[in-house]
Amino acid sequence: MSDNWLDEIQWGADGLVPAIAQEAGSGTVLMVAWMNREALALTVREGRAIYWSRSRGKLWRKGEESGHVQLIKDVRLDCDNDVVLLTVEQQGGIACHTGRHNCFFKQLRDEAWVSVDPVLKDPQQIYR
Amino acid sequence: MSDNWLDEIQWGADGLVPAIAQEAGSGTVLMVAWMNREALALTVREGRAIYWSRSRGKLWRKGEESGHVQLIKDVRLDCDNDVVLLTVEQQGGIACHTGRHNCFFKQLRDEAWVSVDPVLKDPQQIYR
Repeated sequence: MSDNWLDEIQWGADGLVPAIAQEAGSGTVLMVAWMNREALALTVREGRAIYWSRSRGKLWRKGEESGHVQLIKDVRLDCDNDVVLLTVEQQGGIACHTGRHNCFFKQLRDEAWVSVDPVLKDPQQIYR
Repeated sequence: MSDNWLDEIQWGADGLVPAIAQEAGSGTVLMVAWMNREALALTVREGRAIYWSRSRGKLWRKGEESGHVQLIKDVRLDCDNDVVLLTVEQQGGIACHTGRHNCFFKQLRDEAWVSVDPVLKDPQQIYR
C-alpha cells in the first residue's frame, strides 16, 4: 500500500500534528490531541483513534484504560495539510479524563474560566 | 482588569496555543489557527477572531482583507488548558482562503485525500 497520503501531511518539527475529535451526529468538539505518522496510520488501519501522548512519549490508544474508545467515521485534512479532523463515535459518551462528555468544559465568563459542564462519571471509577 | 485568565493558559514553548473556530448553529469546524497571549486578549476584547500568523509572524485579524470576519459567541478552554475553542459566526459564510466554507475539505478515501467540498467564491475575488 502506498503511504503517499501520509507524506502529504505537513508534520511539525516534532513530527506531530494536532488532531481534533468531533462527535458524529452532535458535532460536539470532544478533544484535541496529537498524532505522529504512526498514530495516524494505525488510527486509519484500526478504525479507532490512536494518538501520540506528548506527556508519556508513546502511542495512546484512546480508551485503552477507560474503555472510552473513539470509532472513526471520517478523516479530514485541512487546507494547509497540518491539522487532522476526525469524526468519531464516542464509546461510553465520555471523551475527557475528568469524566465529562468533552474536554472543552471551561467557559470564559467575565474574564474567568468557569467549569460549566457536568462530570458524568467519577474518574476514579473510570481509571481503576 | 486582571489577566489571570490568560495566565491560566498553558502557552506552548513558542508562546502559542491552537484555537479551533467552530461555527455557531451548524457546529462545523471551520478552521484551526494559532493564538498568542495578545491575540486571545484582543479576540475577547474586540469580539472577533484575531490569530497569530506563524507564516507572517504577526497578528492576523481574520477577515481583514477578505471581510470574512469571525464574530465571537463563546470561548472555551480544554481540560489541559492548552487548546482554545471559539464558537463563531462566520461572516460571508467562507472561512477558508481557498474560498470554501471551511478548511477541512480533504477527505481520506482509500488512502488518498480527496477534495469533497465546493469552492463558493474564487479566491481571486476574495483577495483583491
